[in-house]
Amino acid sequence: MNVTDAFGVVLKKYRKLANLSQEQLALQCNLDRTYIGMLERGQRQPTITTLFTIADTLSIEPNKLVKEIEALL
Amino acid sequence: MNVTDAFGVVLKKYRKLANLSQEQLALQCNLDRTYIGMLERGQRQPTITTLFTIADTLSIEPNKLVKEIEALL
Repeated sequence: MNVTDAFGVVLKKYRKLANLSQEQLALQCNLDRTYIGMLERGQRQPTITTLFTIADTLSIEPNKLVKEIEALL
Repeated sequence: MNVTDAFGVVLKKYRKLANLSQEQLALQCNLDRTYIGMLERGQRQPTITTLFTIADTLSIEPNKLVKEIEALL
């Protein structure tokens, strides 16, 4: 699995754990809902700032998200 | 400090620890030397794939780079 796909898998997992819809997460991150969907499907990859913004919204440390991505590669 | 600037600081630190010039790192990462310079000055921010590529080249786990960035925010 590549990094972009792995990020999508991890994002979807933690969004669901936080009980947020794509739309709710997008709103809280000030991002577009379609962009969240594309991230989860591995059709876009985030910048490091977006990674930190999403992690903050999901109340998880960015390094923990990244560690989970590493485990999927 | 914002995420982009913090990444630049951490990148420069680990590039120097690895005894690599910007040019050498760029070559090994298949990136442009000017792009490495811009990353280090916080003038560009990496995608998550670039983060993983650079971490791999510097032989450091991506989550450890991210943890150091967190400590600078």
